[in-house]
Amino acid sequence: MECYLDNSATTMCYKEVADIVYEVMTRDYGNPSSMHGKGVDSEKYIRDAKDIIAKTLKCKPGEILFTSGGTESDNLAIIGGAMAHKREGNHIITTSVEHPAVLESMKYLEKQGFEVTYLPVDSVGEISLEDLEKALIPGTILVSIMYTNNEIGSCMPIEAAGKLIREKCPGCLFHVDAVQGYGKMRINPKKLNIDLMSVSAHKIHGPKGIGFLYVADNVRILPTIYGGGQQGGMRSGTENVPGIAGLGKAAKILFDDFETKMDELRELKDYLIDEVTKLPDVVINGPAKQNGDDGTGRIIYSAPHIVSLSVRGIRAEVLLHALESKGVYVSSGSACASNKPAISATLQGIGVERELLDSTIRLSLSDMTTREEIEYCVKALEEVIPMLRKYTRH
Amino acid sequence: MECYLDNSATTMCYKEVADIVYEVMTRDYGNPSSMHGKGVDSEKYIRDAKDIIAKTLKCKPGEILFTSGGTESDNLAIIGGAMAHKREGNHIITTSVEHPAVLESMKYLEKQGFEVTYLPVDSVGEISLEDLEKALIPGTILVSIMYTNNEIGSCMPIEAAGKLIREKCPGCLFHVDAVQGYGKMRINPKKLNIDLMSVSAHKIHGPKGIGFLYVADNVRILPTIYGGGQQGGMRSGTENVPGIAGLGKAAKILFDDFETKMDELRELKDYLIDEVTKLPDVVINGPAKQNGDDGTGRIIYSAPHIVSLSVRGIRAEVLLHALESKGVYVSSGSACASNKPAISATLQGIGVERELLDSTIRLSLSDMTTREEIEYCVKALEEVIPMLRKYTRH
Repeated sequence: MECYLDNSATTMCYKEVADIVYEVMTRDYGNPSSMHGKGVDSEKYIRDAKDIIAKTLKCKPGEILFTSGGTESDNLAIIGGAMAHKREGNHIITTSVEHPAVLESMKYLEKQGFEVTYLPVDSVGEISLEDLEKALIPGTILVSIMYTNNEIGSCMPIEAAGKLIREKCPGCLFHVDAVQGYGKMRINPKKLNIDLMSVSAHKIHGPKGIGFLYVADNVRILPTIYGGGQQGGMRSGTENVPGIAGLGKAAKILFDDFETKMDELRELKDYLIDEVTKLPDVVINGPAKQNGDDGTGRIIYSAPHIVSLSVRGIRAEVLLHALESKGVYVSSGSACASNKPAISATLQGIGVERELLDSTIRLSLSDMTTREEIEYCVKALEEVIPMLRKYTRH
Repeated sequence: MECYLDNSATTMCYKEVADIVYEVMTRDYGNPSSMHGKGVDSEKYIRDAKDIIAKTLKCKPGEILFTSGGTESDNLAIIGGAMAHKREGNHIITTSVEHPAVLESMKYLEKQGFEVTYLPVDSVGEISLEDLEKALIPGTILVSIMYTNNEIGSCMPIEAAGKLIREKCPGCLFHVDAVQGYGKMRINPKKLNIDLMSVSAHKIHGPKGIGFLYVADNVRILPTIYGGGQQGGMRSGTENVPGIAGLGKAAKILFDDFETKMDELRELKDYLIDEVTKLPDVVINGPAKQNGDDGTGRIIYSAPHIVSLSVRGIRAEVLLHALESKGVYVSSGSACASNKPAISATLQGIGVERELLDSTIRLSLSDMTTREEIEYCVKALEEVIPMLRKYTRH
């Protein structure tokens, strides 16, 4: 049996996504900038995709800007946003647990003279609103906070943060990296006071190499890629029409009967957590189960698809390969950070014991994951952990 | 009958390209950064594509950097190249007839304090080597010259320019936008002293949304997109594996029996020129026929696939739509410049009469174009031109 639990690294395309990509590549292959009918046909795929996506966000189709993926969306929002507003201030706020696409964009801006405040997170991976409030100053031009952490699945207090930003710094841009959030939770950027939001297609069964940035109507950013003036001059280059059509199709399929799918997904995740925590020396990192009270009355939010777990005394890489030999695919740390095995800022940030940092794997589900797969994965863990422990304890 | 003669705007994917893209999207969908087998399988597609492309350029696989397309490649080469070498000087040279992806990158750099010299072109669209020599000064850090003009198919004297640059400014980077040249002519960047070369997949029957930048081994540029450090940190973001595999497949197919294909293509183009110039008031712009003596002993080079023609007294847009009604798809000006109908800098640069500027269409062929299509296109022009003239002369 094969059990793919690395859906936060990337997902399998829906068959219908691959079909439409194929169709656009071989039949409706025109350049949307062409004046003839083949250009018009091609443009229609872009319009359709925008319409579909706009519906999922309750925004306007014109607020969707296509990019080559989540990384470019983050770069464009942060660098393009900061550059457009540098006359109004040079202070930016983000968190210490963002994706490298955000953190490295921040580093670039620091070299350009911007000052960046990195907010810490608590044991479930959330920033504190008090910290955010203190950090917001008159010169703050941009705040970038992720919707869902890619390693532990925690959700940031985006709604409260958005309100706070609007109250304290009305002109400040609010960017949200929703690469792990879009397609897992309903997100209404207008309601959440989000100005810019990054999304990647290949995390929601769409093609790699395509994504979008939501740019609220009244928001001004500068482009980061220059050329023929496509997409209103905001992102030059012939549009990746097959990719865009595939992204639209993925969103359409995923958001059809969305709540049912997500309830089922969350059930699977909870079941997985219930089962693996029965195993000795297994620790769940971050927000354990589904949304709910943490015992103190505070509501903890978490994504329905990510489980971070540490197995005391067993190195993540060894566990990963042992599971792989049984057809179970998981991730050690975050696959997004290329092949560099570095200590995770997120795991350190939430206070994971030093000893467990290198013993942590991520299991990430999708709406294509079945109960059989999860049962199989639990069985594999049950078999593999004692076996590996035998070797590592010698 | 359908006759697609807008191949310089974009091409239809080869069936085998669409097949491999489909396969990667649905079967080998892993993230190349993942440590498990699905990541390894995915990485193999990248390696294979690099190997194929490297063979076509007689370069090393490690000199191929994948991007989201020609525009991003141009931006990365020019902005990333200039930024990496700004301590050595602030002077850049390019031509007045480059693609907007080059010209707009130059405008960006001018705003950053760089000085750009724009070389004019002669009646066949070539720069003069004397002009280039004069422009090269000790502070010149980058020269960017296109291989083939996208509107008239002229070829720049790249070999001579490369030599000149090496002699006069050994440390200066030489970038070539080969978006219309790669896959139409054999290009050996090492032999031509090219340091950086931009290529787009969708101009050679590959997918949209993918391209590459050739970066010679010893050449230092800075990235323009920041994140997880993929591709040696030079281009972050999960690799577009289906796109990369499709690009590799397209290069493999196109470069198989390449010389025969290009000879046939050139024959078709020459036949087209022979036939259309028999029509009254039709003028060919730029280098007319195949490579050869221009009558003064000078050898004129031209690409085998682009024909720019003006029909006196008939507006390009009207001609385009009349041809379209017969199933013949051509371009007015260059489709790369989005939907803005602007006067072409190339046509003005080569001295096309003012009266003809707005009466110019581009017919661009590919190796998939057949003799029957060209015959049909000629017949369509024969029918359409007198008909339109009847209306416009009233």
